[in-house]
Amino acid sequence: MSLFEKHEAALKKAIDAIHARTFYAAYAEQPSPAVYGDTADTLGQEKFKASLGRKFEELNQPSPEGWAGQEESPYLQEALKISYPIFSASTLVERSDKAFHVWRKVSAKDRAGILIESLDRVKNRFFEIAYATMHTTGQGYMMAFQASGPHAADRALEAIAAGYEELTRFPSAAIWDKPMGKFNVQLKKEWRAVPKGVSVVIGCSTFPTWNSVTGIYGSLITGNPVIVKPHPGAILPIAIVVAEIQKVLIENNLDPAICQLGVDTFDKMITKQLAENPDVKLIDYTGNSLFGSYLESLPGKIVFTEKTGVNSVILDSVDDADKAAANLAFSVNLYSGQMCTAPQNFYIPEGGINTPAGKISFDQFARKFVDNLNGLVDNPKAGPFVLGAVQNKKTSERVLEAEKLPGKVWLKSRVFENSQFKNARLVTPVVVEVDASQKEIFSKELFGPIALLIKTKNTDQSIALAKEMAQKHGAISCGAYSTDDTIKEKIADEMSLAATPVSFNLTGGIYMNQNAAFSDYHVTGGNPSGNASFTNPEYVTKRFTWVGHREPVKIG
Amino acid sequence: MSLFEKHEAALKKAIDAIHARTFYAAYAEQPSPAVYGDTADTLGQEKFKASLGRKFEELNQPSPEGWAGQEESPYLQEALKISYPIFSASTLVERSDKAFHVWRKVSAKDRAGILIESLDRVKNRFFEIAYATMHTTGQGYMMAFQASGPHAADRALEAIAAGYEELTRFPSAAIWDKPMGKFNVQLKKEWRAVPKGVSVVIGCSTFPTWNSVTGIYGSLITGNPVIVKPHPGAILPIAIVVAEIQKVLIENNLDPAICQLGVDTFDKMITKQLAENPDVKLIDYTGNSLFGSYLESLPGKIVFTEKTGVNSVILDSVDDADKAAANLAFSVNLYSGQMCTAPQNFYIPEGGINTPAGKISFDQFARKFVDNLNGLVDNPKAGPFVLGAVQNKKTSERVLEAEKLPGKVWLKSRVFENSQFKNARLVTPVVVEVDASQKEIFSKELFGPIALLIKTKNTDQSIALAKEMAQKHGAISCGAYSTDDTIKEKIADEMSLAATPVSFNLTGGIYMNQNAAFSDYHVTGGNPSGNASFTNPEYVTKRFTWVGHREPVKIG
Repeated sequence: MSLFEKHEAALKKAIDAIHARTFYAAYAEQPSPAVYGDTADTLGQEKFKASLGRKFEELNQPSPEGWAGQEESPYLQEALKISYPIFSASTLVERSDKAFHVWRKVSAKDRAGILIESLDRVKNRFFEIAYATMHTTGQGYMMAFQASGPHAADRALEAIAAGYEELTRFPSAAIWDKPMGKFNVQLKKEWRAVPKGVSVVIGCSTFPTWNSVTGIYGSLITGNPVIVKPHPGAILPIAIVVAEIQKVLIENNLDPAICQLGVDTFDKMITKQLAENPDVKLIDYTGNSLFGSYLESLPGKIVFTEKTGVNSVILDSVDDADKAAANLAFSVNLYSGQMCTAPQNFYIPEGGINTPAGKISFDQFARKFVDNLNGLVDNPKAGPFVLGAVQNKKTSERVLEAEKLPGKVWLKSRVFENSQFKNARLVTPVVVEVDASQKEIFSKELFGPIALLIKTKNTDQSIALAKEMAQKHGAISCGAYSTDDTIKEKIADEMSLAATPVSFNLTGGIYMNQNAAFSDYHVTGGNPSGNASFTNPEYVTKRFTWVGHREPVKIG
Repeated sequence: MSLFEKHEAALKKAIDAIHARTFYAAYAEQPSPAVYGDTADTLGQEKFKASLGRKFEELNQPSPEGWAGQEESPYLQEALKISYPIFSASTLVERSDKAFHVWRKVSAKDRAGILIESLDRVKNRFFEIAYATMHTTGQGYMMAFQASGPHAADRALEAIAAGYEELTRFPSAAIWDKPMGKFNVQLKKEWRAVPKGVSVVIGCSTFPTWNSVTGIYGSLITGNPVIVKPHPGAILPIAIVVAEIQKVLIENNLDPAICQLGVDTFDKMITKQLAENPDVKLIDYTGNSLFGSYLESLPGKIVFTEKTGVNSVILDSVDDADKAAANLAFSVNLYSGQMCTAPQNFYIPEGGINTPAGKISFDQFARKFVDNLNGLVDNPKAGPFVLGAVQNKKTSERVLEAEKLPGKVWLKSRVFENSQFKNARLVTPVVVEVDASQKEIFSKELFGPIALLIKTKNTDQSIALAKEMAQKHGAISCGAYSTDDTIKEKIADEMSLAATPVSFNLTGGIYMNQNAAFSDYHVTGGNPSGNASFTNPEYVTKRFTWVGHREPVKIG
């Protein structure tokens, strides 16, 4: 049985899911022993610990120019001391270009089989990847498991399915038979989906697998070889994925350079050299806007970016103010605001928020919000796990700086200890009230758990500001609370024009930060927060070119 | 019956045709009285003549800032003296932006119905458009009818069908129902295809409708208002199309500014002002590479270009050298080489071309080719009609200049008269032999009937040069003659990497210049000759953004 036959049913289910857009998950998101095995967690943790202080030797990339690695655990504030093989950008690109001419000739079916097989192998390492993610990104255990494991694998499968569907959506051959009156002109036509060439996927420090696998698998399914350039601070999670892909390639007698890991260090980054190499045709990027915009401006490249944005919450009217405040407090606390979907700007009318029991004033809502933030942080069964740790020291500094913003400080960041990790880099949220006129303060991303309560004249001004922020500075998510259908439609329509998805009236266990594979397009591609979307057709069609050849049918 | 219902069957047939890629034509390409009516040709010619020297008053665009027009007939070398309403770029964009918020709220079905209806109205004016095309572009009557009439309408319908399919490919709403163990999280989700905004379609002087209608209809079906900016030398054909679209819009109580004509004059072009206006989000362009590359570099715009290229013919081996030479001679003569798909560089091995009867030498083939060029030109029943007239004086000058190229001149351009149009601007082909080492000569487009016979070491060098030209300078078409399957596959593979479609072994009544709607992707978008393709999914998906909103399902 070929790998395609083995995984054909899974592929078809995934394609159906893309079109149904209802709930679908191919990989179970709970780290349940019943699904993953009784010993999986323990073994995964052991494997992670065993990798510390050693060379990562699982890659099939011969003759490294050196070994290096600078990862550090945000929980321990200690170096992981894992070293990876180092290659120059030119070596990586040369090997990739050679592998290109192997991989592009592998059929779409065989590519799909190999790639889904690699995801199943990765599944066996979800726990190890979870610990690797915790100790590079600072994510809490549950998020680390879900985001880097099953949710990433679902996104990867989504990209494979979207790519496979596009590759097979039009016939690869047809007879074109044109009546010309007394005779017919007959042409044999054939169409090839020609991959663009060497693809570079540039990872970020907070979601090292989730944000990279779509580009990796999206490029691979469409026939492009991939160089994975992880963030120097978060390598191990994606190194494991690349190693598993290489193993399946080798088992199928293919060049492992079809998917390479290109590690670098903070003092000697190779990203620009990779990106500017003329043989590199495709670039996927997650990270800051400055570098992302530089990449987008490179001539002759197809570039997919997820950059930064300013996410808004519009508060107009609520059924239950406590539930709304609790939901939003969770969104801010979750992974200490280090998600690209975390809310930052909360627009509240100066006249307050309508509820079935009458108006809640601006101050009353602010108080509820702060109480909920504190309540969650101080809950020993939730706080440490929801907050996680802070990946980058600069984020902690930014949070403390935020207390100096010119506005009423509703909540200061405070000393907080994680009893499991006494040395963890932690920060609790800061909440500052600013006026709608202080645009210079809230017109930029303040990455981390920083919430700005912006006092507006009314909901119309709230909407106008949320839209303006998204159009000018980008936005990946938006929350809105309104019980009025006319206002909801206005928000939906105006934020659509700013290409920002809106989560309305969320309460309970679902948050505006979350984007589900097979259903939510993550980043729309339509505002400055990024030019690409997980995973709409454009995300894969731009990775190849349709080229049609034709020839007269020989008359027998 | 709604317009959608009226045209639903036509729309479905067109969508099916996109996927079948066999022969399909919705509009009959023969100017046959049986199809178009006995008097259609005569009436069309009369209507064209009646429009000369007058204001074009069919547009519904109030308060023009003036009236102007500088079209000239290449057949008469006289001004048409038709004047069109003139508007500033800012007036056009303001009106378009206002119309945007009307048009984007019209459903995809209603848009499709209105747009197909407009094509049926245009069909009633195919003959008038044909004469308008002849006397602006210099095309022969038959090409003018086919390219500007039925072929353009087919391409427009293809764009409507592709757009409609993409808009309806994913559900507009779904219930996302996620099991969470003891309960389910249920979200109502909805997705909106949000149009990008004001669209500008910049026309060219040689194919004023064929090259513009795909962008016009592609933008309109996806909800974007369009400003059509024709070439100042070829306005009337597309003005008629815009007028018909406006009439259908008005009949449906819609703002005619949804599709405006933005005429300018050679001395006061508004193209840059339109393109750089921040409210303009989409640009379609056909024309020279310099201006096309400038447009592609504009930040924050989605740009679709068809620029120039260097089209090659690779001659390796033939079944019948006379038939091959005849076919290629037709391709060079057709509309005096003024097609973007016309061949220019003919690569012939110094050792000659294999045939079943033995080798034909380089010189023997060159002689056959020249004889066929002359034979066609000198055939009074074919020559004048195939050659047409020359749109731009510079093209004639370039052809005469080509005789001075450093190489053997196999054929000089000669004095030629069209008995029907004694004053026509005419030019016959020039053929020059150059060596494969003289790359500086054949590395650029020499627009017009200029054929370079390039003497190569062997077919491998021919392929390498054809590929290099396409990758570096772009190519829209490629011809190849080989009877060897291995060589054919090598050509197909190598030219695929240069994103250039190859027509193999064409003889008889089908030519490498021709690209059929619903089957051939015209321009692949994968080399410097352009970044867009008529009509693959990307051509329409880039014109809108998927934005998803969501809200918890209320528990009854």
